[in-house]
Amino acid sequence: MRCDRVWIKARLATLAEGAPGLGVVEDGVIAARDGRIVHAGPAADAPAFDAAETVDCDGRWITPGLIDPHTHLIFGGDRAHEFELRLAGASYEEIARAGGGIVSTMKATREATEEQLVAAALPRLDALIAEGLTTIEVKSGYGLSLEHELKSLRAARALAKARPVSVKTTFLGAHALPPEFKGDADSYVDLVCREMIPAVAAEGLADAVDGFCEGIGFSPAQIRRVFETARAHGLPVKLHAEQLSNLHGAALAAEFGALSADHLEHLDEAGIAAMAKAGTTAVLLPGAYYFVRETKLPPIDALRTAGVAMALATDCNPGTSPLTSLLLTMNMAATLFRLTVDECLAGVTREAARALGVLADRGTLEAGKACDLSIWDVERPAELVYRMGFNPLHARVWSAAS
Amino acid sequence: MRCDRVWIKARLATLAEGAPGLGVVEDGVIAARDGRIVHAGPAADAPAFDAAETVDCDGRWITPGLIDPHTHLIFGGDRAHEFELRLAGASYEEIARAGGGIVSTMKATREATEEQLVAAALPRLDALIAEGLTTIEVKSGYGLSLEHELKSLRAARALAKARPVSVKTTFLGAHALPPEFKGDADSYVDLVCREMIPAVAAEGLADAVDGFCEGIGFSPAQIRRVFETARAHGLPVKLHAEQLSNLHGAALAAEFGALSADHLEHLDEAGIAAMAKAGTTAVLLPGAYYFVRETKLPPIDALRTAGVAMALATDCNPGTSPLTSLLLTMNMAATLFRLTVDECLAGVTREAARALGVLADRGTLEAGKACDLSIWDVERPAELVYRMGFNPLHARVWSAAS
Ligand SMILES: [Zn+2]
Ligand SMILES: [Zn+2]
Repeated sequence: MRCDRVWIKARLATLAEGAPGLGVVEDGVIAARDGRIVHAGPAADAPAFDAAETVDCDGRWITPGLIDPHTHLIFGGDRAHEFELRLAGASYEEIARAGGGIVSTMKATREATEEQLVAAALPRLDALIAEGLTTIEVKSGYGLSLEHELKSLRAARALAKARPVSVKTTFLGAHALPPEFKGDADSYVDLVCREMIPAVAAEGLADAVDGFCEGIGFSPAQIRRVFETARAHGLPVKLHAEQLSNLHGAALAAEFGALSADHLEHLDEAGIAAMAKAGTTAVLLPGAYYFVRETKLPPIDALRTAGVAMALATDCNPGTSPLTSLLLTMNMAATLFRLTVDECLAGVTREAARALGVLADRGTLEAGKACDLSIWDVERPAELVYRMGFNPLHARVWSAAS
Repeated sequence: MRCDRVWIKARLATLAEGAPGLGVVEDGVIAARDGRIVHAGPAADAPAFDAAETVDCDGRWITPGLIDPHTHLIFGGDRAHEFELRLAGASYEEIARAGGGIVSTMKATREATEEQLVAAALPRLDALIAEGLTTIEVKSGYGLSLEHELKSLRAARALAKARPVSVKTTFLGAHALPPEFKGDADSYVDLVCREMIPAVAAEGLADAVDGFCEGIGFSPAQIRRVFETARAHGLPVKLHAEQLSNLHGAALAAEFGALSADHLEHLDEAGIAAMAKAGTTAVLLPGAYYFVRETKLPPIDALRTAGVAMALATDCNPGTSPLTSLLLTMNMAATLFRLTVDECLAGVTREAARALGVLADRGTLEAGKACDLSIWDVERPAELVYRMGFNPLHARVWSAAS
């Protein structure tokens, strides 16, 4: 079989659907042509390859390239000073007076040019890439005006030109109420639906539409309007749901066939059933749970029992999860949420791809999929979850680079 | 003033004792000669330097080189499989049958040569160095026999030859009871006191002696014998104390003028008072707290009130803290223990030096001390604590390298 590259003497965690556990192949081979996997499986079953390049993996493990399916990577400024003030015992008012909170991020995002937003995001992206990331979702949501939301999405798209990585963008205009609409959220939702989503769709700037359904965000009725508008423009939806309270956002998302519902600490049985029925993936965000010192756990066992797919993401954002490590995300999911090693690894590969609607194209090591690989200096995949602050990536292969 | 190197246009967090907060100097200069700081302070007060090399820091922050004052970096094997089994719901017996627990680390450590122990530790050390570490404490404690404890300490000493870093070694023979002494801990303590400590002292292999005072470790009476022997051999002591229960180990340590008492979740007021009186540093280990899902917090406020110095460490070990990041350790100390940013940064510099008895020589940016520097690409020091899984180190300077 003619191909561009073959990786031999590898141990594979294929994560193939239907395979037990991680879909392990002990003596494995992967062959790629034109950036696609043409063979992934046991060396014993492999055809003869006529390869331009052969890579001896020396027994290293190969997983699918890591996927982060929920980030707010594009923002201006940071909130380190707010973090510092809070630890020093500052009150909410003192922090607000010092310019803290999401409004401070909105202001810094509006003040930044597209180029500045890209430059600020690249170190964060580089940290993720250094751990084997090959696909990332990036949301807008700190511009909160037509101009600055479009700018944020353009910056997100530009990341894919600046680095060898696949980027899926999400429009999150319904993230927070900008101060100029204080007391009139419905009018802001009008703006989101009548101007922002049409403009985003016309420019092809977003692959999905997201919202924040919460007492401090938007009501289910408002989110419904956002989702209806997204549907009218042919855009799939997802939702920040049940993070701080139960507004039944997950069920609403499921009603719209959402790709995912994310956070979910306060999710109830009805929401789980709706997600299971709709095939909506649960995106769990243990970094935010840890950082805000949440104590209510998402209903992991019930999600398992219902067969809801569980993905993991960094939720990288300046306010509640300044996290740029999927390895640490897995450790937190295991330590704090008691996900198994297999669930953690599936959560940042196969299930993350499912959450982004790209499972047919990537997320597992199977013939026909993009050749996105992470190659690891470990003796067993559990090490990727077990360690904290350690990066055993040996090499990363991004399909579109070849 | 003649010197080898000058760093200009730097913002300094000197951590100088007596200075408020981090001892910040906004437009700072550091000059070094023969590996020692000869000047550190405001550019305005600096003498004229005749320097062989001038480094423009472009407004970057310089902190003292980071110090990890409590690690078990030398061990064979890992416990990733045990971690995996536990997440999958395995019982204690199943894990023991699968070869888990500290005995598995003891066996792997005994089976390894000194060279193999060094090779296994180097990736862990490299991860710490990549974040600006310049001094590390490394304990024995997985050999648990004369031969293998000496081998472990030699491996720890060898780390300082393999990498540009200062290593302080600690003999921790009283870490766990090896199976061959089951039911007869006193006889093992005899071995520690009559053979191990004398041999360790004769070879000059340890800078301090440590123990694990706990129901599953050694009793206060046994630790007292270890400490008396250490004292007879001129070795300072420290102690794993009050981690799982209150055996009044911290007060015992203080009675022997211990450098530090470490863990301390169950520390009481009497222990705090004893530590304060003796000048014993509290070494807090939030990575272990996190990893074992401890819920009892160390008495931070009471330690503050009593004026006990608080240092931070990774406790890097395969069973309860597979952590190789002091940045993440600081984040955990802030997030989980509510230490302030200033306390976190002092905890891995000045107070860590104090915990190792080397504060006169390093741990702050002051003339006369070793020129161990970490230079950071951040706008404010709080970023070093706030972010998770992100390493903004720009450069590291280790004094003995020049
Ligand atoms: Zn989010
Ligand atoms: Zn320890």
